[in-house]
Amino acid sequence: MRQLAVVAALLGALPALADEGMWTYNNFPAAAVKAQYGFEPTAQWLDKVRLSSARIAGGCSASFVSANGLVMTNHHCTRGCIEQLSTADKDYIANGFYAKAPTDELKCPAMEINQLAEITDVTDRLNTATQGRTGKEYSDTLKAEMAKIEKECATSDQVRCDVVTLYQGGKYNLYKYRRFQDVRLVFAPEHAIAFFGGDPDNFEFPRYDLDVSFVRVYQDGKPAPQDNFFKWSKAGAKEGELTFVSGHPGRTSRGLTIAELEYQRDVVLPKTLMLMSEQRGLITEFQKRGPEQKRISNNLLFGVENAVKAQKGRHEALLDKAFFAQKVAAEQELRQKVNASPELKKKYGAAWDEIAKAQEQLKHIRKELNFMEKGQGFSSQLYNIAMTLVRAADELPKENGVRLREFTDAALPGLKAQLLSPAPIYPELEIARLEFSLTKLREELGADHPFVKKVLGKESPLTLATRVVNGSQLRDVAFRQQLFDGGKKAISGSKDPMIELARLVDPDARAIRKNHEDNIDSVIRKNSELVAKAKFEVYGTNVYPDATFSLRLSYGSVKGYVEDGKKVTPITVMSGTFDRHTGEAPFALPKSWLDAKSKLKASTPMNFASTNDIIGGNSGSPAINKDAEIVGLIFDGNIQSLGGEYGFNESVNRAVSVHSEAIIESLKTVYGATRVIDELRPGKPVPVKAPPAG
Amino acid sequence: MRQLAVVAALLGALPALADEGMWTYNNFPAAAVKAQYGFEPTAQWLDKVRLSSARIAGGCSASFVSANGLVMTNHHCTRGCIEQLSTADKDYIANGFYAKAPTDELKCPAMEINQLAEITDVTDRLNTATQGRTGKEYSDTLKAEMAKIEKECATSDQVRCDVVTLYQGGKYNLYKYRRFQDVRLVFAPEHAIAFFGGDPDNFEFPRYDLDVSFVRVYQDGKPAPQDNFFKWSKAGAKEGELTFVSGHPGRTSRGLTIAELEYQRDVVLPKTLMLMSEQRGLITEFQKRGPEQKRISNNLLFGVENAVKAQKGRHEALLDKAFFAQKVAAEQELRQKVNASPELKKKYGAAWDEIAKAQEQLKHIRKELNFMEKGQGFSSQLYNIAMTLVRAADELPKENGVRLREFTDAALPGLKAQLLSPAPIYPELEIARLEFSLTKLREELGADHPFVKKVLGKESPLTLATRVVNGSQLRDVAFRQQLFDGGKKAISGSKDPMIELARLVDPDARAIRKNHEDNIDSVIRKNSELVAKAKFEVYGTNVYPDATFSLRLSYGSVKGYVEDGKKVTPITVMSGTFDRHTGEAPFALPKSWLDAKSKLKASTPMNFASTNDIIGGNSGSPAINKDAEIVGLIFDGNIQSLGGEYGFNESVNRAVSVHSEAIIESLKTVYGATRVIDELRPGKPVPVKAPPAG
Repeated sequence: MRQLAVVAALLGALPALADEGMWTYNNFPAAAVKAQYGFEPTAQWLDKVRLSSARIAGGCSASFVSANGLVMTNHHCTRGCIEQLSTADKDYIANGFYAKAPTDELKCPAMEINQLAEITDVTDRLNTATQGRTGKEYSDTLKAEMAKIEKECATSDQVRCDVVTLYQGGKYNLYKYRRFQDVRLVFAPEHAIAFFGGDPDNFEFPRYDLDVSFVRVYQDGKPAPQDNFFKWSKAGAKEGELTFVSGHPGRTSRGLTIAELEYQRDVVLPKTLMLMSEQRGLITEFQKRGPEQKRISNNLLFGVENAVKAQKGRHEALLDKAFFAQKVAAEQELRQKVNASPELKKKYGAAWDEIAKAQEQLKHIRKELNFMEKGQGFSSQLYNIAMTLVRAADELPKENGVRLREFTDAALPGLKAQLLSPAPIYPELEIARLEFSLTKLREELGADHPFVKKVLGKESPLTLATRVVNGSQLRDVAFRQQLFDGGKKAISGSKDPMIELARLVDPDARAIRKNHEDNIDSVIRKNSELVAKAKFEVYGTNVYPDATFSLRLSYGSVKGYVEDGKKVTPITVMSGTFDRHTGEAPFALPKSWLDAKSKLKASTPMNFASTNDIIGGNSGSPAINKDAEIVGLIFDGNIQSLGGEYGFNESVNRAVSVHSEAIIESLKTVYGATRVIDELRPGKPVPVKAPPAG
Repeated sequence: MRQLAVVAALLGALPALADEGMWTYNNFPAAAVKAQYGFEPTAQWLDKVRLSSARIAGGCSASFVSANGLVMTNHHCTRGCIEQLSTADKDYIANGFYAKAPTDELKCPAMEINQLAEITDVTDRLNTATQGRTGKEYSDTLKAEMAKIEKECATSDQVRCDVVTLYQGGKYNLYKYRRFQDVRLVFAPEHAIAFFGGDPDNFEFPRYDLDVSFVRVYQDGKPAPQDNFFKWSKAGAKEGELTFVSGHPGRTSRGLTIAELEYQRDVVLPKTLMLMSEQRGLITEFQKRGPEQKRISNNLLFGVENAVKAQKGRHEALLDKAFFAQKVAAEQELRQKVNASPELKKKYGAAWDEIAKAQEQLKHIRKELNFMEKGQGFSSQLYNIAMTLVRAADELPKENGVRLREFTDAALPGLKAQLLSPAPIYPELEIARLEFSLTKLREELGADHPFVKKVLGKESPLTLATRVVNGSQLRDVAFRQQLFDGGKKAISGSKDPMIELARLVDPDARAIRKNHEDNIDSVIRKNSELVAKAKFEVYGTNVYPDATFSLRLSYGSVKGYVEDGKKVTPITVMSGTFDRHTGEAPFALPKSWLDAKSKLKASTPMNFASTNDIIGGNSGSPAINKDAEIVGLIFDGNIQSLGGEYGFNESVNRAVSVHSEAIIESLKTVYGATRVIDELRPGKPVPVKAPPAG
């Protein structure tokens, strides 16, 4: 049974067995859930859950939890905002944050929340447009038609429309969202309890974290009322209970071809892991420069460490010979079935080899693409701002359909919010990051590469980084606005050294991007579409697509597993948190918890593991019961879940949540956050035991 | 032809073709050299060259270049010593060093030089001892017999005797060396020209480095006279000229089985590259703490960067599918030949699978072995000293044959020199390194591993590292001597926190080592011996063994190659050095060179590439002509040479040397190092043009 489940995942095409699957809302296997768990979600149930779910555009999931626009997500999903709102004097990361009154809620400088209002299938429209086209022509047409569809849909800045590529191009759906760009921080605990155990415990279970935060969506300066939101369950998740997770898994690669997986295994993952590991060492030591440097680089370090651990897990999954052999066998079986039918062979037979050839080509331009265009060579917020401004000046005057994808009309509201965000930018950290990435640029392309010579000239990476960061005015939002409004003329005439650097890089970066899009990406897209269609024809359409940071629903149950021969029980309790306290970070509990220890109910469930099929991007997803009530808050997966990128193994792959009772108990007893509890459980008065937290 | 050459290398057993091969002096293919280059080295020629060659025990090669004990090697081979002799005020790394008078020569705190006096085949003796034994019994017997042989041979501290395992155990040779432990620094240029181009240019060609230094061996306080040394050639290497390289390649893995190579490719190299990359980032940023922190960590950073680049190249070689397929095919061919003969099959047939099984077992204890015993968890000089003292107290009272290998009588002179070296140890760097490695220990074994809990207790890695480094007296050599002399009693009673840490770790570290030695290493050794013997029986013995940091002779010629379709000429000239100067490190020439620019002959050959088959450990090897005269000084290989770990590709694999003329021209014109030139070319007066260097 387990073996079969894995094979199904490998094929990415057979009906998934057991609890596998990140299902789209318009193709949810309600009957399978009923067969397994005795509960069948209705269309109404699915609509309600979908509309109560939320996405944080920066890369997380969330949920609406009150009629008054209160949104629950992870602490690590809002920590960027929390860090941006903090200063050396007011460190909300260290001390937590609680808006005692509505007017105390603080606007996050650059957060966007989306609520999925509608899904429309636009596969036929796009297939018709691209019919008979290949290469550059195929990808130009596809891009233009997508931009057109999105523009037609996005009737105002409050509407966000994304054409989502599903099944590697087997289907295209238009996702229409309600967009909230005024998001305010309501509550966040101290980092020390939100990420208790730190990197050593990250992706591990048993776990003891309160990785929760609350924000609120506003419209026209007022909380945006919500018809749909999740209610709070009475007691939270119980062992064996059916749980649904509604969220936005970022990316899986279960449907990739062997050539693509080999490229991941042998090129992308080893190279990325080396680069990120070096960056990790650098930032770790940068933090020793002083407390302020530590503060301003915490979020960056967390991001890098999290990514290192996740990608290490993925790499190990692909290096597992037995697992990889299954993937190979599945592809061979599909190709045999395709080749056995003259009709299928004609339509699809060549697709795998075409993809493999494109992957080979990619090897040759990989370094230039990554370091010149994809940011690995210029790791700096100011540089990103500069490049956005330089390109906006060129792109915006063009027809919508021929612009670079990130400058289409539908993408503009998000782009502008990022570009004009008042979030602080720290020159010292900027210089360190830019020096590092320029050093890697030189190392990877070689000191004699014409682009490297052009960029560095006679300067060292440090000299250049220091000059362009310290000399730039781009930290000033008004200055950015001026340049944005001033268009091509303002950009061409600018003497800002970061703008000058972006202008210098732009032609080469565009050229390598164009080469990639026209000659490699277009081939992979086109042929991936063919592979996906071949799978539909051979195995049917009762399957889920790879994750694409679009809303999905997974089902499963609260369940332990066996590790190294030992049974791991699925629910931890609050007293375990105190047992794990050593007094030294990352195992040091905050004072608020130590003070509240005697008042906290020791047996309160803290975190739990469930069989839901999730992945990065699902952070912040609500875990709900069959009554669509909150029973927990997804914040992690166990170490075995990391291979979930390539296939689901129900025996050990577990999603990890904060238990709903841990949230209530700590809001009440540790933080005295009455206002939040009242909203989560209206009409249920809370006896406050603890003094209100600072 | 090229294809054949590669296959020969892959088999590690067919007679090598073209210039491939790191040949032992007692099996040198003189006839093959004659057939290809028209010159046949005689036995006398080989003896002379062998005795003029030298090894730096820490991991480099060198050569005797005067009757008065002058030794030439790379700057990067003595930079440890140069850094140890430097202080914040007298920075010989930055400023170079030249002993104008004999009395100015400075003793390196921990350098040992070896001269290979004699080679004896002891295969039969060891085979007889181990006959019929397997597992722990096999490895204990082998170890005891090796210790016995070495002890019989090492009649004084001036004699060093190593039993060298060749052909993965197909042969054992006793290498008897003359040992010099008083080595003094004579000349070193500035780091900026020795390592011009730094990490970006490392392992690259064309190249422009003066990676040379001179030391002198002393005996009884006087220069040790030498009967054998290399003379200097008149004009140095010319394109197409036959060149020999006599040196100590450290390690190659050309004879490993596929199971072992897969383990390297999928486990060792990715993990090591990640770990070292993180360490690299950390030290890079540690250098920003200040100029003194930069100075004390330069050598460490160089070592890490060099290793990262080398291992990256190796990893890429193994990830090359075509190359790996050739290795697989070669093993399959050999196994088929073995299985085709009932007699061979009975003797050798099972060896490959036994090795594969042991590799699988190794995966399970790998982390514990590396982090508890092999230093990855406790990266600190003081810790190493402490552990050596703790173990010496236990080991030295034992019989020679049953001690841990590094405590045998034959090993003691080297061990004591290291242990009692007055080289400075810097607490700040010690703490940073120890904190890092303890953090990795916790990360890799997990915060809940009993050993991790035992070591860290309630302390963080930083707290523990700070406490044991700052609290230890082991920086004091006299204190170490006391503990060493005091034996078990002194060690057991010591309250030194670093000794306490070593005592705490020792039992677990020994246990995992014993498990590895008895159950895994012994199986691999025994069966590797069988594979090697199978190769001898199938393909004959006219082959070279994998590198083992024992003296080898390779032959080749000065020759360019084609890269990315462009011809690379084999010799660079001095003017190119100035063309590459940007004024910013690592492309900033030292003042001495800028000042001497007009006086230096622009067309002087600077560096050259040759087809000699070398690898790390060969650094500092003399490149000589058929008259056994110095024509250059090996200091690197090109990027294509890194795959040389697993196979030699003559079309692009190149050794890189400093040209002998560059050495003379710079000693003369830049440094006015008359005393050195007079020794290198006695009787040839030097017109000094430049003022003597500081």
